[in-house]
Amino acid sequence: MPRTELDYPKAPYGTVKRYSPRASYALRTIHTIINTSPVLHASFIPPDSPFPTILPMLGQMGSSADEADVLDLYLHGYVSSRIMNISRTSSTSEGLPVCIAASHLDGLVLALTPNAHSYNYRSAVLFGYAVVVDDPAEKLYAMRLITDGVVPGRWDASRVPPNAAEMTSTSVLRVRIVTGSAKIRTGPPADDKGDRGDAEVVDRVWTGVVPLHQALGAPIPGPYNEVKSVPEYLAAFVGRSNQEAKEAAVEAATRVVEK
Amino acid sequence: MPRTELDYPKAPYGTVKRYSPRASYALRTIHTIINTSPVLHASFIPPDSPFPTILPMLGQMGSSADEADVLDLYLHGYVSSRIMNISRTSSTSEGLPVCIAASHLDGLVLALTPNAHSYNYRSAVLFGYAVVVDDPAEKLYAMRLITDGVVPGRWDASRVPPNAAEMTSTSVLRVRIVTGSAKIRTGPPADDKGDRGDAEVVDRVWTGVVPLHQALGAPIPGPYNEVKSVPEYLAAFVGRSNQEAKEAAVEAATRVVEK
Repeated sequence: MPRTELDYPKAPYGTVKRYSPRASYALRTIHTIINTSPVLHASFIPPDSPFPTILPMLGQMGSSADEADVLDLYLHGYVSSRIMNISRTSSTSEGLPVCIAASHLDGLVLALTPNAHSYNYRSAVLFGYAVVVDDPAEKLYAMRLITDGVVPGRWDASRVPPNAAEMTSTSVLRVRIVTGSAKIRTGPPADDKGDRGDAEVVDRVWTGVVPLHQALGAPIPGPYNEVKSVPEYLAAFVGRSNQEAKEAAVEAATRVVEK
Repeated sequence: MPRTELDYPKAPYGTVKRYSPRASYALRTIHTIINTSPVLHASFIPPDSPFPTILPMLGQMGSSADEADVLDLYLHGYVSSRIMNISRTSSTSEGLPVCIAASHLDGLVLALTPNAHSYNYRSAVLFGYAVVVDDPAEKLYAMRLITDGVVPGRWDASRVPPNAAEMTSTSVLRVRIVTGSAKIRTGPPADDKGDRGDAEVVDRVWTGVVPLHQALGAPIPGPYNEVKSVPEYLAAFVGRSNQEAKEAAVEAATRVVEK
């Protein structure tokens, strides 16, 4: 069993400084935010550019060994093979230094004054070293993990295993995580006493939270679909996702965490 | 009037290489993706870390001058003042090199085989130099722009202007954009002919798109709210956002762009 009852070590570059009571270093919290994020943002430093680069990628925490102490992050990218090439030719034996971020928004927090406006959110950031996965068995493990991360059960319900050409054309990165952190905000607006005591302002400005969540619509069959009804595993996933996301956003609107 | 009928120049680090027919360099396309994204991911290279860092931030394209040729990106961050400090002490006169990404997901594209799975999405990335805004008028312009970017009309409906303490405690970055690109995928799944000709596979695997959009729930009044009903500008925004987002996701599920 992977060990998630741990904290990541605090490093100078990975420690939350602003609103630090909102921070968490618990693996379980961070991994849940990463795994439930349909898109991750991965940043690396290209050798030939003045700028860091961000790529939207898909990823899941996992371990191809059964008894790993700490999970790695497996990344699959639609966007560019540049990060793969750089990882492969990276001069350090450790791999390419990367930063990965996941951000869920749960609500718009509307306060009396713009400065007290906020979002309810759950965000996580990981720092680690990325290497290209060459072992076919590990690559297959990661491809299945990432596919089932989008829709649980989809791997077995589709045409698998990938053929040789598909295995060759697919690139997977394994990121060994060095440290990471999460930051979570929940609850209603929290204005300063000065504004809350100003009757003119309080009587005029609506304050509260607009809950926000990702909604999945009714599945739309494609042009060559021959399966008459939406399969049970997919219909159930759509229904469950929508209900859980909606409830979580509403719950976040009212839950006050001690600071 | 800002000029948006332009393309960003192509730079080696900013050119889309994979699935390049999905790419766009049009300012109008890129700016729309940035401005409608409730959260942006900004990456920079800290001087004291082996890793690039990603911060979730809020931002809007804008220009405090009326007749600017090309818009800047204004950023406001909840997360950390570290990027602000680094920008302020950045040794180059140009500012801190940053990369900013925005990603909207419009649907899960479920194909016959995992390798042909995809998302419908609109993503944008910008590269530029960030400096801290010191001029109070420009800072005020950016604060209003960013607040109204979350809920149109919210600035005037709340307690403004910010007082001296609020102006001091708020940091705004202006990013001069050097280049950028967008990438958009729409349409149904597109499997290879081999799988589409395999009756066993086509008869068994459901293929199509699950549209996906951000949904705003009914506004939930906070504990010190005294305004009985949800104001018209807010109710209209919630209704309009939901309808437009839902329609866009469904439309993206069927719109095929020539490749």
